[in-house]
Amino acid sequence: MNDARIDVLQHLLRRYSVGPKHLVEPGPDDAQLREAARAALRAPDHGHLTPFRFAVVPPHRRTELARLFEAAARRHGHGAAESAAEGQRAWNGPVLVAVIVRIVPGRPEVPEHEQWLSAGGALTNFLNALHLMGFGAKMLSGRKAGDPDVVRAFCGPGETLAGWIAVGTPTAAPKARHDDDPAQVIGPW
Amino acid sequence: MNDARIDVLQHLLRRYSVGPKHLVEPGPDDAQLREAARAALRAPDHGHLTPFRFAVVPPHRRTELARLFEAAARRHGHGAAESAAEGQRAWNGPVLVAVIVRIVPGRPEVPEHEQWLSAGGALTNFLNALHLMGFGAKMLSGRKAGDPDVVRAFCGPGETLAGWIAVGTPTAAPKARHDDDPAQVIGPW
Repeated sequence: MNDARIDVLQHLLRRYSVGPKHLVEPGPDDAQLREAARAALRAPDHGHLTPFRFAVVPPHRRTELARLFEAAARRHGHGAAESAAEGQRAWNGPVLVAVIVRIVPGRPEVPEHEQWLSAGGALTNFLNALHLMGFGAKMLSGRKAGDPDVVRAFCGPGETLAGWIAVGTPTAAPKARHDDDPAQVIGPW
Repeated sequence: MNDARIDVLQHLLRRYSVGPKHLVEPGPDDAQLREAARAALRAPDHGHLTPFRFAVVPPHRRTELARLFEAAARRHGHGAAESAAEGQRAWNGPVLVAVIVRIVPGRPEVPEHEQWLSAGGALTNFLNALHLMGFGAKMLSGRKAGDPDVVRAFCGPGETLAGWIAVGTPTAAPKARHDDDPAQVIGPW
């Protein structure tokens, strides 16, 4: 067995989410984001439907995103201060990437749940690649990802907004927050 | 940036499914399967719900699985020869691992689709780990994964049988079957 591979398996086993408070510049550049998308395409994808896509929020649209987040919070009944704080989340992470799921209907041989599994594999491989490049990242979702105006801003018909990945250079090593005992999730049939 | 990590990122980018025809002994041992399950636990999992589990088919139960597959094929209207061939698929791969999704209901902050994404990330990381250990693998599903008797044999109430991973030593290097152009799946918002 190749030692370098096993070292990196050990490194992959230490991928933990790094929250936006602990992410600073620089974030990944366009070539690095494309490499992460290439890793996403290596997740198992029955029927090669690629039921997902990533939309990178450009710096000049953060203000627009902040307004969307703030308006969604107000619609959900939050007060002015809390809504403003929600708006601030649009500046989370040096780079912010929306994750959009696009299920292909009418494919009985690839049920929708298999397509969700593919999209989840793509998201995980996107995060794995960023982690291997030395970046920290966290998937963010919450109620605003389901707000109709926010969804409309990111999704076409039939698409689902899964959330946003905040990514940047971590200011602290990611920490384990759970004891990952594999016996919880594997055993004999 | 660490060169060894980047090399293994390149190696991860060459993970392709290896069909059971091209898988021989040895498959992963129990310790290696537990290590793969540990990688599965490192997929993003909002709320730490671990909405998945892996069930390893023991060698002495392959015959039982073959009977289930054959009966399912008959129920779906296949003839004797075709049904027998479906039964033979129970011997696919030196090691065969069922993938079971267990969505946790009643968690509005973690919608079911997020849990499917977590389960898909777990499946992809399980495959990534096996690939980094030098094994080949393929996720298999198809109509029998939805057969009520097959589902009952693997799942408790509320669980979904996603399929089976066939794993072993690959007799040929995995091959790219698609041109993975990242421009298909990433772009600006």
